[in-house]
Amino acid sequence: MSLTLTIKLHLASPPHFSLNHANKVITCKTKTFSNPNNHTKVGAKPIYSATPLITPLRMVKPRVQCSSMIKSSLIEPDGGALVDLVVPECVRGAKIIEAETLPKVHLSRIDLEWVHVVGEGWASPLRGFMREDEYLQSLHFNSLRVKDGSVVNMSLPIVLAIDDETKGRVESATHVVLVGPDGDYVAILRSIEIYKHNKEERIARTWGTTAPGLPYVEEVITPAGNWLIGGDLEVIKPIKYNDGLDNYRLSPKQLRDEFDKRQADAVFAFQLRNPVHNGHALLMNDTRKRLLDMGYKNPILLLHPLGGFTKADDVPLDVRMEQHSKVLEDGILDPETTIVAIFPSPMHYAGPTEVQWHAKARINAGANFYIVGRDPAGMGHPTEKRDLYDPDHGKKVLSMAPGLEKLNILPFRVAAYDTKVNKMAFFDPTRAKDFLFISGTKMRAYAKSGQNPPEGFMCPSGWKVLVKYYESLQAEEASQQPVLSST
Amino acid sequence: MSLTLTIKLHLASPPHFSLNHANKVITCKTKTFSNPNNHTKVGAKPIYSATPLITPLRMVKPRVQCSSMIKSSLIEPDGGALVDLVVPECVRGAKIIEAETLPKVHLSRIDLEWVHVVGEGWASPLRGFMREDEYLQSLHFNSLRVKDGSVVNMSLPIVLAIDDETKGRVESATHVVLVGPDGDYVAILRSIEIYKHNKEERIARTWGTTAPGLPYVEEVITPAGNWLIGGDLEVIKPIKYNDGLDNYRLSPKQLRDEFDKRQADAVFAFQLRNPVHNGHALLMNDTRKRLLDMGYKNPILLLHPLGGFTKADDVPLDVRMEQHSKVLEDGILDPETTIVAIFPSPMHYAGPTEVQWHAKARINAGANFYIVGRDPAGMGHPTEKRDLYDPDHGKKVLSMAPGLEKLNILPFRVAAYDTKVNKMAFFDPTRAKDFLFISGTKMRAYAKSGQNPPEGFMCPSGWKVLVKYYESLQAEEASQQPVLSST
Repeated sequence: MSLTLTIKLHLASPPHFSLNHANKVITCKTKTFSNPNNHTKVGAKPIYSATPLITPLRMVKPRVQCSSMIKSSLIEPDGGALVDLVVPECVRGAKIIEAETLPKVHLSRIDLEWVHVVGEGWASPLRGFMREDEYLQSLHFNSLRVKDGSVVNMSLPIVLAIDDETKGRVESATHVVLVGPDGDYVAILRSIEIYKHNKEERIARTWGTTAPGLPYVEEVITPAGNWLIGGDLEVIKPIKYNDGLDNYRLSPKQLRDEFDKRQADAVFAFQLRNPVHNGHALLMNDTRKRLLDMGYKNPILLLHPLGGFTKADDVPLDVRMEQHSKVLEDGILDPETTIVAIFPSPMHYAGPTEVQWHAKARINAGANFYIVGRDPAGMGHPTEKRDLYDPDHGKKVLSMAPGLEKLNILPFRVAAYDTKVNKMAFFDPTRAKDFLFISGTKMRAYAKSGQNPPEGFMCPSGWKVLVKYYESLQAEEASQQPVLSST
Repeated sequence: MSLTLTIKLHLASPPHFSLNHANKVITCKTKTFSNPNNHTKVGAKPIYSATPLITPLRMVKPRVQCSSMIKSSLIEPDGGALVDLVVPECVRGAKIIEAETLPKVHLSRIDLEWVHVVGEGWASPLRGFMREDEYLQSLHFNSLRVKDGSVVNMSLPIVLAIDDETKGRVESATHVVLVGPDGDYVAILRSIEIYKHNKEERIARTWGTTAPGLPYVEEVITPAGNWLIGGDLEVIKPIKYNDGLDNYRLSPKQLRDEFDKRQADAVFAFQLRNPVHNGHALLMNDTRKRLLDMGYKNPILLLHPLGGFTKADDVPLDVRMEQHSKVLEDGILDPETTIVAIFPSPMHYAGPTEVQWHAKARINAGANFYIVGRDPAGMGHPTEKRDLYDPDHGKKVLSMAPGLEKLNILPFRVAAYDTKVNKMAFFDPTRAKDFLFISGTKMRAYAKSGQNPPEGFMCPSGWKVLVKYYESLQAEEASQQPVLSST
């Protein structure tokens, strides 16, 4: 599968920078990045003009844009400084030599995603896997108190589980080495603390249910060990997936640099884990229009698909990225004012608890506006016929969450296919019967039967990407049909 | 059952006060209180000298006591002013006339306990049953943001559930009248808001489990309706139980007045729902000694048994109060520096979540030190053979809880019977086998077999109260034995 969106990364003539590490200042050369988002602008402007239905719950005054370059300063990272735990290249060799001497803790694929997330500073000011104090604050208060007494949001416990055998092997050590699924040394975890992993309590407090069938629970927590190991991370080298999409995995620092380069005076983030249909595009374009009306001169959209673990029936990342690229090629979103990048976090499907994490991480990446829709990070209840979360709780909780006061929350009404005008429009409950909600299941049914969705639901080239994907699924299913015995 | 502790309440010549109510200032005469805690001092000082094992997690500098009277000012109530929702007597008649015109919502006995709690300001600045915004903040953040931007602790949702029939009957009204279990008008709930009662989510996020057998859940939540009704309370008259113990039910205002009268320069609260044994006394007396060592001149103990709903196998309130009075009569605690009063809240048994409520409510009553022990508000897991909560989580969570920063948390080590010295002492894990833990079950076994507990476990007169109670239980059980049929 080829992607038409290209991003060039190259190592430029490096400046010097200092990293205060283990009480010793190490100074060495490091990388910088040039424009990582060189989209080709294709096609026309979006065709839908939208009613202004976005009501910011909290709104700061637009900055007056001046001629000098704006410096990563639309919004401060949590804790004041962006955490970057990837060690400079010049000390990598020494770290690997040290790692050889340390007890090993093996990481799953999803553990590795969390190393990536924490290492690049998405969870700033968190500097590693949570120790018990941080875990308890996250679980009970959805926030962490930092040394200066201020509070940052932290709604999901970012923890590393180990089993009894590993605990026995490492508990007397001060530092351990984290070994990736491929056997390579990923990171050193320093000044470790081991504490109990009460899975029932973690699940109940994070998801608000303990019903069987929660995807992250079944994939990650149930099979995990009964202990958690916290400590400070030193990531030995940048995490790469070698799936052809690494160039989309821009770190918070790279994104901030890019916003500066584009002289953004507002950055609005859109988190998603689904293909972009014209309803999504409607609200993103509507948001931009609203920001312009408010006096911002150059609002930039961060279209930010989640790239970590997702449940089996979600559309895979590579298909989504190809679909998103078509949406930009077709001009449904404007490449000039849009940055597409991958958010490396795994998905919890923990609704109002998780949406806080999604918003908080985007603060660290430099977004000062966050779009939130119906039932963010939600899913159906795993054992009952209802949504797991009240679809309005996500935006309500987000608007009141500790540590997110500096972020402008932009709630929006749900968009659906308006059969009266044959296009996606904001849902009007007074004429509910005119609207058609097209779910993933329905899209799949269209694709299966060779039908197209109603015109105006999604750009045709984006739809083609999905048809190809759904057809491949059908082929796979067919090949897995059991052969009926003739006897 | 007669109690030897007596409290005199009388209506004194009243000053005038103003209540800003429904945008109209009503001025009328009201009550004040004289010394509500006129204990007789009996017996000697406690006989146990304790190792100083209390380490305050947060400690403010002792106030320098000056000759002028200290005015309820050891610690500010949450939100700055103590909430008092009981309407002045002079408008009571008018409220009852209005109540006649309002749709009725019927209260259970435990709902009424919550009206009592909120009405007297234990939950300040909360002014009624929670609306959805408050409920969500409590559930997700264990705290509420108040208008000035500051945060107060609020770990338990204080909510009123109604069923479908009631919702249908009241949802078009602005105000409703709350009708007590005896049919009397208890309060008006103003500007109501009705929202969904997702029991599963409430239970999971409050208790960290959804296992069957949680006492408050089985008693209150499972039988409750599927809706919650929030609004501002106007309590028509003070809540009384007419059980001979109402004089112990001092409001936060009455307690603050009493601390002022005694010229307390520190107030340390001890929450309990069990009989007081000499281990409890050891740590209360040790705390006082520590506070004196720190420079406080007149630390007062608030011995504060919980008086609302408790689980079936807890010792009932009347027995506990009689037992506590013996402990004071015997001089195990010093009546001169101790106030015994009833905390009217129902018990959740929600461990680290509930201990925050227990501490927060005592701030409102004027306590600036809070004693916390092993597994506060905890219980056994209802379906597994283990404590429901990590016994250390309560004090850890309390020490980090938002909105409790101004409270000095005094954690203590557990006390047990030291068989080497034949008295209660702080548990020393290096010689664990010397210590005997005497649980409620064990006390009951002693009483059943006519044995006394080891000398020094509890003052003999207090033990007698328990023996009488356990014997009455046995008699009750015997009378309930099914008669075996002779056929």
